[in-house]
Amino acid sequence: MIFCRTKAEASKALEKPRAQARSLGLVPTMGALHEGHMSLVRRSVAENDVTVVSVFVNPAQFDESRDLEKYPQDLRQDLLLCEKAGVDVVFAPTVEEMYPEDFSTWVEETQLSRGLCGAARPGHFRGVTTVVAKLFNIIRPGRAYFGAKDFQQAAVVRRMTRDLDMPVEIVVMPIVREGDGLAMSSRNSRLQGPSREEALVLSRALARAEELYRAGQRDVGVLVREMLDCIRSAQHVQVDYVEIVDAESLEPLEHLNVPALAAAAVYIGDTRLIDNRLLNPTEEGTTP
Amino acid sequence: MIFCRTKAEASKALEKPRAQARSLGLVPTMGALHEGHMSLVRRSVAENDVTVVSVFVNPAQFDESRDLEKYPQDLRQDLLLCEKAGVDVVFAPTVEEMYPEDFSTWVEETQLSRGLCGAARPGHFRGVTTVVAKLFNIIRPGRAYFGAKDFQQAAVVRRMTRDLDMPVEIVVMPIVREGDGLAMSSRNSRLQGPSREEALVLSRALARAEELYRAGQRDVGVLVREMLDCIRSAQHVQVDYVEIVDAESLEPLEHLNVPALAAAAVYIGDTRLIDNRLLNPTEEGTTP
Repeated sequence: MIFCRTKAEASKALEKPRAQARSLGLVPTMGALHEGHMSLVRRSVAENDVTVVSVFVNPAQFDESRDLEKYPQDLRQDLLLCEKAGVDVVFAPTVEEMYPEDFSTWVEETQLSRGLCGAARPGHFRGVTTVVAKLFNIIRPGRAYFGAKDFQQAAVVRRMTRDLDMPVEIVVMPIVREGDGLAMSSRNSRLQGPSREEALVLSRALARAEELYRAGQRDVGVLVREMLDCIRSAQHVQVDYVEIVDAESLEPLEHLNVPALAAAAVYIGDTRLIDNRLLNPTEEGTTP
Repeated sequence: MIFCRTKAEASKALEKPRAQARSLGLVPTMGALHEGHMSLVRRSVAENDVTVVSVFVNPAQFDESRDLEKYPQDLRQDLLLCEKAGVDVVFAPTVEEMYPEDFSTWVEETQLSRGLCGAARPGHFRGVTTVVAKLFNIIRPGRAYFGAKDFQQAAVVRRMTRDLDMPVEIVVMPIVREGDGLAMSSRNSRLQGPSREEALVLSRALARAEELYRAGQRDVGVLVREMLDCIRSAQHVQVDYVEIVDAESLEPLEHLNVPALAAAAVYIGDTRLIDNRLLNPTEEGTTP
């Protein structure tokens, strides 16, 4: 496994596979890798000749400096996990390498990124699309892997890829959960003591919405209320948003007659967690 | 020469050269080709195995619908000129092919694009950077060619390419002028009767600034006044802007102790023309 800190090192590491036109998969991450990330890595290793994992805590996508400061990092452990999973190249650039002082170009998706986390975190998706566009140009993968926990992120990245004609296939993999249902997230490591238990209201609220939906409930107001009740039963959990949106357009829905997404974000102290579930009348899987 | 109307056709035409890793030059144009464009084409043909010319009147970069409607088009003649110059592929997509109805992703440079034409034409450079990013992803050239008449455009595209790590070398070629000094532009064909003669005040004003500069004049105010006097001597010419800016940052200059750019834009009727000249203390050529 090759470890690269600079774009030049990454280009050098990929020179040969590129010349041989070998298939290349990229798993963009912010490190602190967990089973969610590793499911993407395994899929990439399985279907590409070469797998690159990028590890970069991208300051441009943090709307709160405190969240950035506290974002968990464990590069040593990440490298061990990647090596073991058969990753070929880990690209972990510095902030200076990615954003020179006079950096001034942004990639911005303006429709799918407006609601949900986009409304709650101004500038977040602009940071995501910009860094992903950069990584695509540096690594030039044929496929890139994203997790469905960040459903909106995957939808925004897929739209960017289509709109800007990037020659990359976006593969979205299902949410990986802890045994008790909590969606895996690097931020989960920040949950201390009773917070970890209380965090379960997030996945439970979404599971409850899906259960009611399967039982025939089609009233958006009822489903949202049920989710809010569930989340508010926990003392230290603050609701950021709870919404049911069209799974394609991510616009708020009035009638549940198209594939929908129940999505929620909560704060537990200063740790923000998100989760979602598809509510799909056709029972076919919908990914962004 | 292969003529492509769709992205799929372009990909097919470029499949073989890509597989053989042949060098590829792209000359992005809005058609109505003149000697300025052809100087870029000839340079690309000379230094690449394969040259692609794109012909696309990009609605996203027009801030005035009337300018878009009146923009000259002559695809038949463009194809003849390209064929004769040894171009391999002409890519002339429709607007629908480039911008699907729910298109929502933009590439925006936020520093170099603020002043000059960026201030005069809101959204113009966002349209330019977005379409150039798309063309780079569709064609995937190793080099792309731009003319120095659109000095700010070349600087903005070069910055975008650096910031987003696009693997493309930006080549900027000198302004090509008519015998009487008028910078070549597709819009020149819209100048009727006395307008064509009056348009000369633009290049003359810039030549006058350079002359005074070479003679030692370092007062920005004096140079701008001289240019304004020259342009205003023509009855039907309206000044859009006349500025002297830092040739690197494109910020307004107070002291002429660094490479500078004298740049001007005028309206003759509803035809907008631009031109520029470098004022370079080191006498080395500076391109954006």
